[in-house]
Amino acid sequence: MRAFTKRLNFESTRAPEFIDITDEVVRAVGESEISSGVAVIFSRHTTAAIKINENEPLLLKDMEHFLERCASKQTYYGHNDFAIRTVHMHEDECPNGHAHCQHLMLGSSEMVPIMDGELVFGKWQRVFLIELDIPREREVIVQVMGE
Amino acid sequence: MRAFTKRLNFESTRAPEFIDITDEVVRAVGESEISSGVAVIFSRHTTAAIKINENEPLLLKDMEHFLERCASKQTYYGHNDFAIRTVHMHEDECPNGHAHCQHLMLGSSEMVPIMDGELVFGKWQRVFLIELDIPREREVIVQVMGE
Amino acid sequence: MRAFTKRLNFESTRAPEFIDITDEVVRAVGESEISSGVAVIFSRHTTAAIKINENEPLLLKDMEHFLERCASKQTYYGHNDFAIRTVHMHEDECPNGHAHCQHLMLGSSEMVPIMDGELVFGKWQRVFLIELDIPREREVIVQVMGE
Repeated sequence: MRAFTKRLNFESTRAPEFIDITDEVVRAVGESEISSGVAVIFSRHTTAAIKINENEPLLLKDMEHFLERCASKQTYYGHNDFAIRTVHMHEDECPNGHAHCQHLMLGSSEMVPIMDGELVFGKWQRVFLIELDIPREREVIVQVMGE
Repeated sequence: MRAFTKRLNFESTRAPEFIDITDEVVRAVGESEISSGVAVIFSRHTTAAIKINENEPLLLKDMEHFLERCASKQTYYGHNDFAIRTVHMHEDECPNGHAHCQHLMLGSSEMVPIMDGELVFGKWQRVFLIELDIPREREVIVQVMGE
Repeated sequence: MRAFTKRLNFESTRAPEFIDITDEVVRAVGESEISSGVAVIFSRHTTAAIKINENEPLLLKDMEHFLERCASKQTYYGHNDFAIRTVHMHEDECPNGHAHCQHLMLGSSEMVPIMDGELVFGKWQRVFLIELDIPREREVIVQVMGE
């Protein structure tokens, strides 16, 4: 039994954006040479989530609209009210309360079992890094554990 | 330290449907003979989620209504618009945009620690496979890792 | 490769309440002396979730409002209708259908990779136990696996 770690970096270009990172995850699992175990895919951010779903372009648009309906950019967020907020304010602060709420419902990680050296994905399952805030460089950790 | 894998198959009968699969998960962990570690319960689908909650019949109905309020079948989804969609179209395609959005908020897996050979479930915790799309056969992978 | 388990107890004081448990999780991982692997943080409840997000006081309020908008206390839940409900009724039963629905979208656990003896948290990532029901004692299991 061993643990293998790989850092992956992605540049998002808009928000929301569903970035299909499946190929990079599969490559990391291949490099690990672990044939039986589990892969954890973890985002190091609070406004960029990891989720498994289908990569069909119209569906990605539907899911973007779904996120906007759940936690709209237009809603009032105290986190965006820079006239009253005093905590965690930094130079390039931007109003992203909606992105935090969307992240809350999506989550920071997914895990996928590995059997016979392969991630056990079903036919339509793809792993996405979902940019919810303004585009930037994002870091994802793939941790593979097994034998 | 070892990894033990079990494939489980379930036949859903309606949608949404909360199928309590706790007994099958407990049995798989027993078969693994792993007494300390973690069990991953993973759905191989993008419209059938895994979630832990309480199995009380009226609550299951409440959660079904909650899912419908969050991502209604009545909403427009481009994924359902077969007049314009070209990607991933197959013979028995059915309109399931709502099911993908519900899956996005629910997720593909749960994990449960194992101590002294037992899953550390609290009093009310039960594992559900949640059918979100049309009824069919569904596959769940239980991956147990530990010693 | 080993597994290390720690039980943590927290007393919630209101609902919803975001309780930052990061320091306790970090301490448990330190005690485990596992330098490479993964930590699972698991709530043993169906109305108290585990989630990673930013600990900014106004944002915590925003996320409380977000949860209320998603599954309002004011909505009808059959689970709360003690005139018709017969299952899982106990002495101190209280109307908590909204808390179960919020738990359904949030989830029971998070996992965080460990590298070089440290949880790989990004700058703003903090782990929260989120009380959704009436205040009480809550139990969280931290399971650390690795080498």
